[in-house]
Amino acid sequence: MAINLEDIPELSPNTQALPYLKQLIEERGKLKVKVHLTGGATVIDCGIDTAGSYEAGVLFAKICLGGLAEVKLSWGDFGGLYYPAVEVTTDHPLRACMASQYAGWVIKKGNYFAMGSGPARARAGGEELFAKLEYKDSAAAAVLCLEGRELPPAEVVSYVAEKCGCRVQDLYLLIAPTASPVGSVQIAARSVETGLHKMLELGYDLGRIQNGLGIAPLPPPAGDDMTALGRTNDAVLYGATVYYNVRDTDDTLQPLIEQVPSCSSRDYGTAFQELYERYGNFYAIDPLLFSPASVWLHNNTTGRTFRKGGPRPDLLRKSFRIED
Amino acid sequence: MAINLEDIPELSPNTQALPYLKQLIEERGKLKVKVHLTGGATVIDCGIDTAGSYEAGVLFAKICLGGLAEVKLSWGDFGGLYYPAVEVTTDHPLRACMASQYAGWVIKKGNYFAMGSGPARARAGGEELFAKLEYKDSAAAAVLCLEGRELPPAEVVSYVAEKCGCRVQDLYLLIAPTASPVGSVQIAARSVETGLHKMLELGYDLGRIQNGLGIAPLPPPAGDDMTALGRTNDAVLYGATVYYNVRDTDDTLQPLIEQVPSCSSRDYGTAFQELYERYGNFYAIDPLLFSPASVWLHNNTTGRTFRKGGPRPDLLRKSFRIED
Amino acid sequence: MAINLEDIPELSPNTQALPYLKQLIEERGKLKVKVHLTGGATVIDCGIDTAGSYEAGVLFAKICLGGLAEVKLSWGDFGGLYYPAVEVTTDHPLRACMASQYAGWVIKKGNYFAMGSGPARARAGGEELFAKLEYKDSAAAAVLCLEGRELPPAEVVSYVAEKCGCRVQDLYLLIAPTASPVGSVQIAARSVETGLHKMLELGYDLGRIQNGLGIAPLPPPAGDDMTALGRTNDAVLYGATVYYNVRDTDDTLQPLIEQVPSCSSRDYGTAFQELYERYGNFYAIDPLLFSPASVWLHNNTTGRTFRKGGPRPDLLRKSFRIED
Repeated sequence: MAINLEDIPELSPNTQALPYLKQLIEERGKLKVKVHLTGGATVIDCGIDTAGSYEAGVLFAKICLGGLAEVKLSWGDFGGLYYPAVEVTTDHPLRACMASQYAGWVIKKGNYFAMGSGPARARAGGEELFAKLEYKDSAAAAVLCLEGRELPPAEVVSYVAEKCGCRVQDLYLLIAPTASPVGSVQIAARSVETGLHKMLELGYDLGRIQNGLGIAPLPPPAGDDMTALGRTNDAVLYGATVYYNVRDTDDTLQPLIEQVPSCSSRDYGTAFQELYERYGNFYAIDPLLFSPASVWLHNNTTGRTFRKGGPRPDLLRKSFRIED
Repeated sequence: MAINLEDIPELSPNTQALPYLKQLIEERGKLKVKVHLTGGATVIDCGIDTAGSYEAGVLFAKICLGGLAEVKLSWGDFGGLYYPAVEVTTDHPLRACMASQYAGWVIKKGNYFAMGSGPARARAGGEELFAKLEYKDSAAAAVLCLEGRELPPAEVVSYVAEKCGCRVQDLYLLIAPTASPVGSVQIAARSVETGLHKMLELGYDLGRIQNGLGIAPLPPPAGDDMTALGRTNDAVLYGATVYYNVRDTDDTLQPLIEQVPSCSSRDYGTAFQELYERYGNFYAIDPLLFSPASVWLHNNTTGRTFRKGGPRPDLLRKSFRIED
Repeated sequence: MAINLEDIPELSPNTQALPYLKQLIEERGKLKVKVHLTGGATVIDCGIDTAGSYEAGVLFAKICLGGLAEVKLSWGDFGGLYYPAVEVTTDHPLRACMASQYAGWVIKKGNYFAMGSGPARARAGGEELFAKLEYKDSAAAAVLCLEGRELPPAEVVSYVAEKCGCRVQDLYLLIAPTASPVGSVQIAARSVETGLHKMLELGYDLGRIQNGLGIAPLPPPAGDDMTALGRTNDAVLYGATVYYNVRDTDDTLQPLIEQVPSCSSRDYGTAFQELYERYGNFYAIDPLLFSPASVWLHNNTTGRTFRKGGPRPDLLRKSFRIED
């Protein structure tokens, strides 16, 4: 084997996502997605004017994680509820989950609205978060993942290209509604990310986290996006278990674990949609609720493991409208 | 990336199976299968004059599903029995399971007998089922999967080629006995298909089903094919859990769920081999028994989920002759 | 498809490992490993002067198994402890586990010390075991896996090349400490191997074993190698479940199953590190303790299944220092 040891590719999430993107485009028939050229960019419809599929959901999630995580469908035991599941594993928690997957870019342009996530965020670098991460991707390509129900028009394409500082021909936009098979998979694949974001909110230094593994129930597609928003959130809040390896002192982790899982929130115990209706406003819901149901923090430095929380099959059944 | 957007490959199960077939042939040493040329066609022995292997079983199952499903080995919890498992996921339930995987073609020619399944059925299109599916594959290749204990002779090869309307050099026949590692995997990979077939028997419009996910215990190879037939059936009837996304009215699904799982049959609760011995005839067993143990029907239109049934570890232990 | 049926590649574990080795080297940035040229050989640091990663651990394990097994991360239920897991499946138990993966080559040269495993052992063939296996690999390449905390110097490289009878440029050495993410994965991937070795110790003819499937909890990296040695052992002894297909008489298997799982040992029930401290000497620990917690022996000849043992979540919690 002749290996050029000098040629270490830079770990760009936009570049690492490209092989999965290529597969999504090439196998679009099998994956039930549609590919359009809009304003010079490639727009992939993963569930608006096409059904989408679970396998497309797995690829969407891998792309959204900047190609730096494994994602697979399996079956899991959620406190006695044996159910289809989405597993995610990453050795690059910051770059995969925070610099790419986190839905931190609200795309608003004219009448267009969609939540933006994926590696293009690291290309645009406009969010406050990137100052904390001290990271910006300089790859040629930019890959944006959208959660919404309207295909981005040419106007949105140029807006995103401009923000990313890339040519439109290097821009790829994937979109899937919340209430769709792709939506179910890609949101359930956010278990590790949700826990990281909660720790960031708590002021924890995410640079100490080495790896993350998570499993969440695959939320059944809802009949409408609002209900889907509720059950995809509940899949993580009341179903997910995540495991992190960190390098820290036990004195830091012992109090931290008390605060990380969703059960540490005052709003814990109520399904998302009910909370939303109670408060009438997303932003009135306790932000500390948004975290996995069960969290493991393993300290690689000392070898001790801290755990708190657990799945709530009763709430999952209610949220998923399981009747048996 | 230069992508030719005009070139959407037709979703032919015979064509989609080819990459897996290629792998099965190329890695035949590692996979413990043997490749023969018989009457101009390629015949792959997956367990007659060779041991076969679990990995070959996974490829056999993927080929049998027309390359339109994921299949993997894992471990599952079957009502407290923690056991090796076969998972299957498809976004093409009709084409993968009904047009390809269903064992609907009895190959009888002279003294030769074997159960035929796989994508070649969609090429031959001779079964009544294909009129209902309104589908016939016109790929160049034809790939037939056989469950039996005798390699197909040249006479059978020409017969199959003629029925498929293909050249013998484009015909591939895979064969594995019921009582073999490949047999165990490929039959346990029929969990999603078995539930679909049951719903077809009940008169349900399968076109409403979007995706299917299933998990079944990996039946241990039996000492003889008759016993193997019993335990591979029991793996699905008393072990499998399947999940379908459908688009329908709740009024249709609510009564349907009562009828789908195996527990809705008058013959439920008795191991297959015992039933076979009781009736002395396969066709006397209630055809409505043949369905997964536990069935989920999720309505994508309304977001409600219906479930019935559950694994029977007691019957699995008996059928698998587990002594502990 | 044009397939050359004459060209059946010999099943060399050193050759079969090469594609995984190539991936480990090419994706070294993403996998957090470092590649060095030492004395003409390729040395891959998987956790000494670099963090390593879980994905690198999966590749390390596949390489160590001579490319003849599947290895994947998942989640498992270990007697009520729902935990990240390592699954391994092989259709080549002797060649993958005994001729390659078993850590049977102690590398001692000058002050250098590391445990050697992997396919290079089948190239060197110096261990007594290889006379029993009647097997020696004659591939050009030699791939050695080391468990240790010091990169092998040029002196060790030439020593290993000489023992393997290969050119230094054909020699690859991978190394990871016990207390590291790669160490955790690659040792937990030894569940099937540990049971095989136990049966070999009991005088059982391993040639009768057709396949092996195993699952073990992923031991959390410890703060030091001694503790890591304890918990990686405990992951198998008190966590692993393995399943073997064998061809034998039931009269042989019935008494055998009583002896195989770890619970058959006089030292069962105590964590490894505590035993080590009690005896003050690794070799004073009952060698019969080293076996998976739960063992299935399925007789392919008669169709009967024997099982004994079970996971001990209490001991896993203690060993992994889980505090919840």
